[in-house]
Amino acid sequence: MTARPTPLLALTLGDAAGTGPELITRACCDPEVRAVCRPVVIGDAATVRAALAITRAPARVEVIGRPAEASDDPTVISVIDLANLDAARLERGQVSAITGRAAYESIRRAVELTLDGSAQAVVTSAINKAALHAAGFHYAGHTELLAELCGGPKVTMMLVAGKLRVCHVSTHVSLAQAIARVRPERILQVVQLAHDGLRQIGIARPHLAVAGLNPHAGEGGLFGTEEIEFIVPAVDEARRRGFHVSGPFAGDTVFFRTLQGEFDGAIAMYHDQGHVAAKMLGIWQGVNVTLGLPIIRTSVEHGTDFANAGRGTGDPRSLVQALKLAATMAAHRVGPPRSA
Amino acid sequence: MTARPTPLLALTLGDAAGTGPELITRACCDPEVRAVCRPVVIGDAATVRAALAITRAPARVEVIGRPAEASDDPTVISVIDLANLDAARLERGQVSAITGRAAYESIRRAVELTLDGSAQAVVTSAINKAALHAAGFHYAGHTELLAELCGGPKVTMMLVAGKLRVCHVSTHVSLAQAIARVRPERILQVVQLAHDGLRQIGIARPHLAVAGLNPHAGEGGLFGTEEIEFIVPAVDEARRRGFHVSGPFAGDTVFFRTLQGEFDGAIAMYHDQGHVAAKMLGIWQGVNVTLGLPIIRTSVEHGTDFANAGRGTGDPRSLVQALKLAATMAAHRVGPPRSA
Repeated sequence: MTARPTPLLALTLGDAAGTGPELITRACCDPEVRAVCRPVVIGDAATVRAALAITRAPARVEVIGRPAEASDDPTVISVIDLANLDAARLERGQVSAITGRAAYESIRRAVELTLDGSAQAVVTSAINKAALHAAGFHYAGHTELLAELCGGPKVTMMLVAGKLRVCHVSTHVSLAQAIARVRPERILQVVQLAHDGLRQIGIARPHLAVAGLNPHAGEGGLFGTEEIEFIVPAVDEARRRGFHVSGPFAGDTVFFRTLQGEFDGAIAMYHDQGHVAAKMLGIWQGVNVTLGLPIIRTSVEHGTDFANAGRGTGDPRSLVQALKLAATMAAHRVGPPRSA
Repeated sequence: MTARPTPLLALTLGDAAGTGPELITRACCDPEVRAVCRPVVIGDAATVRAALAITRAPARVEVIGRPAEASDDPTVISVIDLANLDAARLERGQVSAITGRAAYESIRRAVELTLDGSAQAVVTSAINKAALHAAGFHYAGHTELLAELCGGPKVTMMLVAGKLRVCHVSTHVSLAQAIARVRPERILQVVQLAHDGLRQIGIARPHLAVAGLNPHAGEGGLFGTEEIEFIVPAVDEARRRGFHVSGPFAGDTVFFRTLQGEFDGAIAMYHDQGHVAAKMLGIWQGVNVTLGLPIIRTSVEHGTDFANAGRGTGDPRSLVQALKLAATMAAHRVGPPRSA
């Protein structure tokens, strides 16, 4: 009897001046990771070898031509070599157009390989936005870049930290603009994306909690009327469409309640509402998921940690969780990958 | 040698239809509480006796005429009897004008006793806003009521959860209004209040972190300009005035960093930013402090928990922490209480 092959995950290098390559060498050796997936690093192979020399992770680099050639051997880190960095001259901890461009090329290739079905998911390491901009790629964030590479679908960012799973009505816009995005159409879109995303991590009929926008979810209109005007109608309509949705609830307790297991996921009305909740649980353990893309994408939640690059001391837990979650989502995916 | 007497704390009954009276009987028997303070319950004595019958806490009620008569004996719960409820007819778990009025009278008396120096701090149990409103007292919250009873000083709400101490530029206003409150004058006011409050809990030279308003603290103006226009100038001015202040920092990590000990306290730009952070650490352990009043005031962070009233199963940790923190603040208070 042959075991079902584990999913192939296209793992981006991230910004090579940060801790990304080091974390990759450690996460790829994690037995729990290797039990559920075959990571394929997309990036400069010499840079991965240099990171291995720093972390002394028990593995060696093997360059492959396509994801299907990835090794099952947990002491082998399979790399599709983009050969786009000079590992010997890498300036760790510095913003540069060189690593910014290499980070972009890694993401682009990982997305291509996943869109064409060669890999089953993209898992991304941290990038530096200033480096990306210096290389001429002007995106508000990773999510926006991925959405564009996938043809511009409507997406939402889901943060996962233990049993807290939180999706966002908006992310990278000013708080004033975020208020204006709180409208039934967008809330319903996020309910649909969250529902689909939670099903993909194995929850058959997800129960979603919707946060209010204002303190105490508006306290019956006393502290703002967006709940009455926009959020309650969206929740009512979502129920009519058959979703299991409750709320709006006071933002300051709904995420704690979700973490305690009262709901399967929560919908935050803006960036910090959901991000504060997820990151209070520890910034080295969370996972960031983009829902709505034609491909599965998970990511580390932390940044490039420039201050610790080259020391081999980085915490790989977020990347480990990102790989494991992508593997779970790939396993629950129904049917073939959609094309963009 | 006579030991220095512990501070007298005026402890309000809260809404008697909730778990407040039960939590009081348990917290007042806590040896750590009794080691640092003498709580004086301000409310209906028969209701406290009824709560004792439910929780079976190892204590008895003793009615006193003024706080100075409070017993040092940890098996005695000293009560200034307002005799304003019919304990036998108490409808637990129900909103009523009767308990709302009794809750108001307890707060009012506790404030009076503290303003006149008979007690050294007010510690408040949870109230039900609908009950308060039903009794004709229309306040956005406890804090607003206390501020009015104290002559309307400028205050800020500080939440304390372990090493996270977070003050708020605004609380009970809509998010749109909260954005408009983010102005240098108010930020400087909150810096001053936070500085004074942290000194009062024993931190000689507090290091304060200021959160941004927008995602990533505005990302250099990309996601909003309030940081550039209002927050950076306020931080600069606070430094010129000699405060130890850093920021603005991204809201989604600044509270976690504060919890980790990088700062002594943080300043949130609006209600949910700070409240989500504090409440993710557990809603049964946090303490709410009003800074800026002429009196010391701490409070439980949770609500009346109507669903569990009468069961004796409530978690008294938040009240225990509120009493201990008030005792610490009373001990660090420099000079006599200011009058309103």
